[in-house]
Amino acid sequence: MTRANSNTFGFNGPQGQEDMSYLLMPGPVTTTQAVKLAALADRDPLDVEVIQSISDIRARLMALAGAGNSRDCVLVPGPATHAIEAALGSFAPARTGKTLIISNGADGDHVANVLQRLKRPYIKIDKPENHRPHAEEIEPLLQADRTISHLWICHCETSSGILNPVAEIATMARRLGRITMVDASATFGALPLNIDRDEIDMLVATGSTCLQSLPGLSFVIARKEMLNASIGHAHSIALDLFEDWRCLETSGQLRTTCPTHILAAMAKALLELEGEGGPDARLSRYSRNAVTLREGMAKFGFIPLLDEDNGCPISHVFFAPGDTHYRFDDFRSALKERGFSIAPGKLAKHESFRVSPIGDITDVHVDMFVQAVAATIKELGLEVLPPHGPGVSA
Amino acid sequence: MTRANSNTFGFNGPQGQEDMSYLLMPGPVTTTQAVKLAALADRDPLDVEVIQSISDIRARLMALAGAGNSRDCVLVPGPATHAIEAALGSFAPARTGKTLIISNGADGDHVANVLQRLKRPYIKIDKPENHRPHAEEIEPLLQADRTISHLWICHCETSSGILNPVAEIATMARRLGRITMVDASATFGALPLNIDRDEIDMLVATGSTCLQSLPGLSFVIARKEMLNASIGHAHSIALDLFEDWRCLETSGQLRTTCPTHILAAMAKALLELEGEGGPDARLSRYSRNAVTLREGMAKFGFIPLLDEDNGCPISHVFFAPGDTHYRFDDFRSALKERGFSIAPGKLAKHESFRVSPIGDITDVHVDMFVQAVAATIKELGLEVLPPHGPGVSA
Repeated sequence: MTRANSNTFGFNGPQGQEDMSYLLMPGPVTTTQAVKLAALADRDPLDVEVIQSISDIRARLMALAGAGNSRDCVLVPGPATHAIEAALGSFAPARTGKTLIISNGADGDHVANVLQRLKRPYIKIDKPENHRPHAEEIEPLLQADRTISHLWICHCETSSGILNPVAEIATMARRLGRITMVDASATFGALPLNIDRDEIDMLVATGSTCLQSLPGLSFVIARKEMLNASIGHAHSIALDLFEDWRCLETSGQLRTTCPTHILAAMAKALLELEGEGGPDARLSRYSRNAVTLREGMAKFGFIPLLDEDNGCPISHVFFAPGDTHYRFDDFRSALKERGFSIAPGKLAKHESFRVSPIGDITDVHVDMFVQAVAATIKELGLEVLPPHGPGVSA
Repeated sequence: MTRANSNTFGFNGPQGQEDMSYLLMPGPVTTTQAVKLAALADRDPLDVEVIQSISDIRARLMALAGAGNSRDCVLVPGPATHAIEAALGSFAPARTGKTLIISNGADGDHVANVLQRLKRPYIKIDKPENHRPHAEEIEPLLQADRTISHLWICHCETSSGILNPVAEIATMARRLGRITMVDASATFGALPLNIDRDEIDMLVATGSTCLQSLPGLSFVIARKEMLNASIGHAHSIALDLFEDWRCLETSGQLRTTCPTHILAAMAKALLELEGEGGPDARLSRYSRNAVTLREGMAKFGFIPLLDEDNGCPISHVFFAPGDTHYRFDDFRSALKERGFSIAPGKLAKHESFRVSPIGDITDVHVDMFVQAVAATIKELGLEVLPPHGPGVSA
């Protein structure tokens, strides 16, 4: 019932599968057929090939992060949410010190929710969803409160698409002797991070966004001294990064049943990233996609939450049409019929939707998407009026 | 470097992929090509088809468990280990009451490890790895200690392959007003459990063993009253079954990034289980495999840990050959070259190895495996002597 309209667009959906759509969402994303085919085998987790693959994946992720010998990479089976909690449980202080969460959206609020459940001390500063918190705003907080030992910040907050200046914040925090933890789950593989140079102490990310692999495998890159110090600190056995790390280092294997199929896809996806020319080339492609998207949507009067300076190519929030006949589900379904999947909005005050022009797509596909939006507006008889309320400017 | 020897056995490895082996281990297992092909598409987690598939999978798992309206099924992304900890965190008592772990191997010890980390009260009784703890042994413990409110027991303890009599224990526990939690991760889909009839309050299982799906998706089936009562009880947000359940019930979706590929494989695997004739037919096939395995191995003098009465078809532990030249890694590698993967042993006192004749294989493949063992013994010049020590009888 949700078929790409091949008559209109002259294509049959990704990989020629008619009933599939292009996934314009911040994970899972559209992957290449080669990545999916890599998963098409039952492998023995004890095989030297699998163990070598785990080692290669870790090394490639380290290289992509700009991580040297003082850091190491720990693979975590499951979604990024699990790896984020594993990182918080393993590294957020429990008695001495506390974590400052720099939040400008749903991802930051989730971290507070986790630390509350874990009974770990934290404070959260809430910045507007269209505001990049800069180092000079954070530094006074660290100067004033010596008990803040750790910072947590998202690289790209997916609820708004804002790109936070994690490098300058981490460098400042390091100067003041604080630890910076970064959630790079939306951006890793495309947006540059150099964690050694920028003094980022730990990052969490996942395979199913800009790395263009299948969902089900996430990872943490952290200072070895943090990993070593975390022995017994986690609130959980399943989400204990020290134990994961120890198992990887002693046996080369994952600690739990290895998701061998997803692992093989990740290995292939990392080769493809290299083949594309690395994160710089991928970012260029995503940036072209983003320009095509924003320019195309602007033609119909769609207003993005963020201007280009604050946003990033990964996730674009548009205010919903101010038309009273607009229903997200109808809008989404009509786009789906035309071969494209978008994500619902997460803004607190305005109805919105999100478009992530990432994955195995080019600006040609984004242009098709823009045509699909045009056809959808026409079909549903929608007027794209600006919404009312704070934070909206045409 | 690990190719099935097609000249010897006249086959090219599973699904015609020469470099793959049959996985004779308690997960991941050999799956059909159709199950793997089902994963070969990038699906939109918000699609009605995906949401319907989640609903169907839950309903089918409930039916397989013999679960009626008083229970519900919660899908947990990741390995069974994560679902086991989610169940312990969500259901094991924290202040009033405590959990009795009935352990006869590594799986039971792991549960104690988790509850210790979670600071939840528990006691563990250790039974020999070749001994089935029966209800009449457990009942006096419950009579004597009124603070025991919950029991945890594995259905099949994979370190030994022993099949624990969970039904009779659960029925007895219910009579005494206690809650029984069962780890059925090794057995679900083949060995019968009827949780309504047998008064099992909660079970945990996974797709990557007898359900013959890909690793990366596990599940819990529990009384709704337990799920409802668990609000805010979990030690974790990521592993909080109440929150998973609430999200499934309100949106039909998973709470975190949906492993859409693994989910599609699970849907297909459940259809294939039905097509095979359900768990009874699968158990018959596995039982034939097991008989072929045990009889074949006996010919060369391999002694199983368990007699047939205590074991089950899922996992077979054999004592390693008493030959001083035996090295597990060499033995395993030589079998791998012949197209079969086995698992290392986990017995505390004896060197052993494990063979699980489950997954998409028949007794024909098991017979090939036995031939591969014969060729391996010859190649390595091993004598299969009985090992010495307690618990070994020829």
